[in-house]
Amino acid sequence: MKIIENGTVTSPIGFFGAGAHVGIKKEKKDLALIYSQVDAKAVGTFTQNIVKAAPVLWDKMIVENYDHARVVAINSGVANACTGDEGLICNEQFAKSVADCFNVEKEEVLICSTGVIGKQLPMDKIITGIPKVKQLLSDNQEAGVIVAQSIMTTDTMPKHLAVEIEIDNKIVTLGACCKGSGMIHPNMATMLGFITTDCNISKALLNKALKEVIQDTFNMVSVDRDTSTNDTVLLLANGLADNKEIVDENEDYNTFKEALYYVNEYLAKAIAGDGEGATKLLEIQVLGANSIKQAKVIAKSVCTSPLVKTAVYGNDANWGRLLCAMGYSGEEFNPYDVDLSIESEFGCLQLVTKGMATDYDEQIATKILSSSEVKAIINLHNGECKATAWGCDLTYDYIKINADYRS
Amino acid sequence: MKIIENGTVTSPIGFFGAGAHVGIKKEKKDLALIYSQVDAKAVGTFTQNIVKAAPVLWDKMIVENYDHARVVAINSGVANACTGDEGLICNEQFAKSVADCFNVEKEEVLICSTGVIGKQLPMDKIITGIPKVKQLLSDNQEAGVIVAQSIMTTDTMPKHLAVEIEIDNKIVTLGACCKGSGMIHPNMATMLGFITTDCNISKALLNKALKEVIQDTFNMVSVDRDTSTNDTVLLLANGLADNKEIVDENEDYNTFKEALYYVNEYLAKAIAGDGEGATKLLEIQVLGANSIKQAKVIAKSVCTSPLVKTAVYGNDANWGRLLCAMGYSGEEFNPYDVDLSIESEFGCLQLVTKGMATDYDEQIATKILSSSEVKAIINLHNGECKATAWGCDLTYDYIKINADYRS
Repeated sequence: MKIIENGTVTSPIGFFGAGAHVGIKKEKKDLALIYSQVDAKAVGTFTQNIVKAAPVLWDKMIVENYDHARVVAINSGVANACTGDEGLICNEQFAKSVADCFNVEKEEVLICSTGVIGKQLPMDKIITGIPKVKQLLSDNQEAGVIVAQSIMTTDTMPKHLAVEIEIDNKIVTLGACCKGSGMIHPNMATMLGFITTDCNISKALLNKALKEVIQDTFNMVSVDRDTSTNDTVLLLANGLADNKEIVDENEDYNTFKEALYYVNEYLAKAIAGDGEGATKLLEIQVLGANSIKQAKVIAKSVCTSPLVKTAVYGNDANWGRLLCAMGYSGEEFNPYDVDLSIESEFGCLQLVTKGMATDYDEQIATKILSSSEVKAIINLHNGECKATAWGCDLTYDYIKINADYRS
Repeated sequence: MKIIENGTVTSPIGFFGAGAHVGIKKEKKDLALIYSQVDAKAVGTFTQNIVKAAPVLWDKMIVENYDHARVVAINSGVANACTGDEGLICNEQFAKSVADCFNVEKEEVLICSTGVIGKQLPMDKIITGIPKVKQLLSDNQEAGVIVAQSIMTTDTMPKHLAVEIEIDNKIVTLGACCKGSGMIHPNMATMLGFITTDCNISKALLNKALKEVIQDTFNMVSVDRDTSTNDTVLLLANGLADNKEIVDENEDYNTFKEALYYVNEYLAKAIAGDGEGATKLLEIQVLGANSIKQAKVIAKSVCTSPLVKTAVYGNDANWGRLLCAMGYSGEEFNPYDVDLSIESEFGCLQLVTKGMATDYDEQIATKILSSSEVKAIINLHNGECKATAWGCDLTYDYIKINADYRS
């Protein structure tokens, strides 16, 4: 697998991107388009929140009932959630306007929205904006980066990548972008993520690969334990790499799935590391669990504890808070079997052996925690299963960003 | 029921209190005693965290196996959690030292600890401290207030009260104190709470009353969703009010239970309002639920959402975050049936009707939210059940307190 430097959703053959400011937000880019030159099989995963935004309901209907899609249109600034029937009508009008502009059916258009909950979409700005953004479409790298920029809300940086693999002697490319960075605790999907590929693969396997990979990547990220109303990951495959269609779970499928995993994990970690106000990416590895579920539940419990997150922000090796968060996770384990280490670019240090403190040096622990990427490795000595969760520290800036988000 | 001004654990007949600095913490009071002149029936509720502190295991054993207690000894500064066999031995030594000093059995002594997890108790300071604190014992009000002060960690104020009721033509008094204020998300109990009463009541009914009342009071409080390793509420009844023993669930029992409920709710709200860094008490009422469980789960989900808590801090009526937190609670409901109002000393305002924004005035909403006690009232229009949860806002000071708690 080869990483494409500065790669993005426009890296695979036949995918075009564009983004611009059309007036939904004050001044930042707020409308983006991803366009496939030919029909692309489309699959997706969506929020499990009971309160689902209008575009989530639309996209779910499309990927479950239609073979393919051509365009993804994304606005930032307004989430079109809790907007009732009017929200549904606006969303469909949004899809129809894009479809008309591209001369395709509205059922070939996927819509994503992100921003404030409870406000209606400013349809006039969107309708006049669509042709302007369409004119900017390009398949070059810059256009793909602009897509990643246009979907940002409180993100501090665009998040995108692309990788190349070889399947059936053909170069197959996967490109992707996503946005965070608050209300992030995905359940079957995350805020907004878009993955394009020119791979030729059956829709059933495309769907299977995405669903499986999501469980260990986006679904293991949490910024603030708030599962959003708009979580969506879309994966489009247009087949233009011209490989023989993948229709079995063979080696080609595994190669594709591995690349998809890499892309998803990269984006998931990027979202956690750029969580609202975050100064650090926090990775919690749980080993020696008696089931994957046990490992995941404990990893997530530690990763989402406000007291763990503030201790990490303060470079404070307050390991008791990690054990405490493990203890209230709901999973059974023996605290006096637990080993715990921390690790970063500055070294590795065992803090806990069999549930109790080692004679570790606090200064060394503080140094290790002062990195911008910090791992805690927990061994339950209770089995062979493991899981990893990603999160971030909880800081003054999280409060600042969220105490007055709407003004 | 009569509220006793500045009442506390020494208000009921025959209860004595004392507290002092014995060197566990740098300079603040860190050791307290509550003593009953005669045998007191003792019941308790304890943390459900798998990781249980040594004193929790001890007290649980005592209230389950012994008829009565005489002394409660409480230290702050060190939690005696994650301390292994040495922690258990220290705890028993603590109980034995208190017992020797009072000339009672160690099984008549209940122990509570609160503070840093993972450190051993400084036994020398505790053992030399016990007789010094015992000398200060008094049944006056001031002594009871000192108990409330001595158990504080990050609390900004002592929390205590007492009430009088009449049972069997006798005056019966209940006194209580507790401490918060971080790692607060009680599950069957809260951090530390102590209730004394001179009521004459059977142990079985004393236990039943406490367990039932806890469900709707302490167990509905959350500061940070972190269920502590040390949560304990103890209730001691010494019978000195001389009423005929309550042995049936009759009117007297109900009078007692009502007073107990009042005391518990008062303390629960005091803990929430004095949550670490909090500027506001947040009360979430859920009405019209199809079960009490549904009402409780939704109320707690809203009350613990970081995004709700930061919006409340910012006086921002960002109601979409409340609906979002309801939606990921795990309970089924129809978002388009939901009504939502906010209320405080500055008025009441309906923000949401049938899941969508009313045409409310943001300035009025901000004014209502600027109070130090804010309520949100959610009606699911889905049944007749209701529940209330208490929490607080999430502020810069929560981060400040917790980023470097141990130094």
